[in-house]
Amino acid sequence: MRVLSVAGITGSGKTTIIENIITELTKRRYSVGSIKEIHYEKFAIDEEGTNTDRHYKAGADLVTARGYFETDILYKKRLSVQDILRQYDHDYVVLEGVEDFFVPKIISAHNIEEIEAKLDETVFAISGRISNEIEEYQGIPVINTITNIDQMVDLIEQKVFPALPNLPEKCCGTCGYSCKELTGEILRGERDRNDCPIGSENSVQLKVDGHEIDMVPFVQDILRNAVEGVVKELDGYKKNARIEITIGDKNGTSR
Amino acid sequence: MRVLSVAGITGSGKTTIIENIITELTKRRYSVGSIKEIHYEKFAIDEEGTNTDRHYKAGADLVTARGYFETDILYKKRLSVQDILRQYDHDYVVLEGVEDFFVPKIISAHNIEEIEAKLDETVFAISGRISNEIEEYQGIPVINTITNIDQMVDLIEQKVFPALPNLPEKCCGTCGYSCKELTGEILRGERDRNDCPIGSENSVQLKVDGHEIDMVPFVQDILRNAVEGVVKELDGYKKNARIEITIGDKNGTSR
Repeated sequence: MRVLSVAGITGSGKTTIIENIITELTKRRYSVGSIKEIHYEKFAIDEEGTNTDRHYKAGADLVTARGYFETDILYKKRLSVQDILRQYDHDYVVLEGVEDFFVPKIISAHNIEEIEAKLDETVFAISGRISNEIEEYQGIPVINTITNIDQMVDLIEQKVFPALPNLPEKCCGTCGYSCKELTGEILRGERDRNDCPIGSENSVQLKVDGHEIDMVPFVQDILRNAVEGVVKELDGYKKNARIEITIGDKNGTSR
Repeated sequence: MRVLSVAGITGSGKTTIIENIITELTKRRYSVGSIKEIHYEKFAIDEEGTNTDRHYKAGADLVTARGYFETDILYKKRLSVQDILRQYDHDYVVLEGVEDFFVPKIISAHNIEEIEAKLDETVFAISGRISNEIEEYQGIPVINTITNIDQMVDLIEQKVFPALPNLPEKCCGTCGYSCKELTGEILRGERDRNDCPIGSENSVQLKVDGHEIDMVPFVQDILRNAVEGVVKELDGYKKNARIEITIGDKNGTSR
């Protein structure tokens, strides 16, 4: 999944930029999901006194409201972006106002000061009101998404890559960078996505109940050795063969 | 996961019964989740014009609002109960007003007519206003959850079992019953949960370069133990979850 982020102060036009990007991406036949960070301490999507709110207040910590045309899964805690993304299976996911997950970023700004406040190595485009005044800032294209959405989405197609795992450096560090730094290196063309061993070709993929679990190379190796240690004793095994294992029934939600 | 359902007409007191059950289950140290069916065509949890609503209207079909204390994952379609339950990892999940997933059921009713309207083989208890008048109906206990919640939750602990897969009979039928019928048989003690082969532990599938490798149960157990020994140490693992592993090829990678 390719993930990008739009950052900027409140009122800088983030949502409008995202609307334009999503509209154009879907026009180009991509599936799109989004994640919106809400910086408002009292945010609560459910209203006081609804049945679901009553379930929650009685002690249910995960409550779903299912209607005829929507299904709202309400976690009563803040999930990590990694955990949220496990629910997604889209070509592109757009993050609005998320500060703790590093992916290629578009800044939305009125002026140079607002650009400077959000500028880092992950920025590959700038948009918002400032795009009426300049076309480029420190080598980064400044694009108006109302008049020039094609240029912006061409750039997204060219620049945005499958998200890095955003593991803490202490847990991985295999590539020699943090995920934030590697994002910058990839955007500048000095490294590429395969420099991250997680999600690249020779890796071990693990899904639990359909959700992908990231593993650092060390853990991938343990799992590969554990599996191959058994499987290589069986008739039909070939060295370097692709191995697929499924434990649990295909339809099982609820063993 | 043990799943139970509370059914009854609007105003019969379903939510109050569920509040009492959830409160008592959490007092007994169980984790509890819930799913509420909303029979209201215009139901929409998100308000018109919010940023997340704007993302959706631009074309994002999965939108998450993340606040400081909650995370709301908003699917713009009706999910099956099976799909919703994949997000849960709780001791008990309580369904309110769900009609299309068969699990042990409590009827909430004012009177005999309302009982009759919802009565089938999956009913193991009755509650609501009628519990002020009778203590038993056709052999089924009638329990007031305000004055007698202990009795109700004792009964839940005794009767409610890990949910059947609720597969269409055409796709399975291995046990000789529909999942609804088997639910009734288990509640009456004539069958038990192990009569359903799905969710049984005996299902490890192995493919090498796409070809299925048969394993006697003994070897299945060795492979399962090798895999689970590693995987259970990872974030994201859930007991009895379906596990899928792919080693040695990029095709399995959804990134």
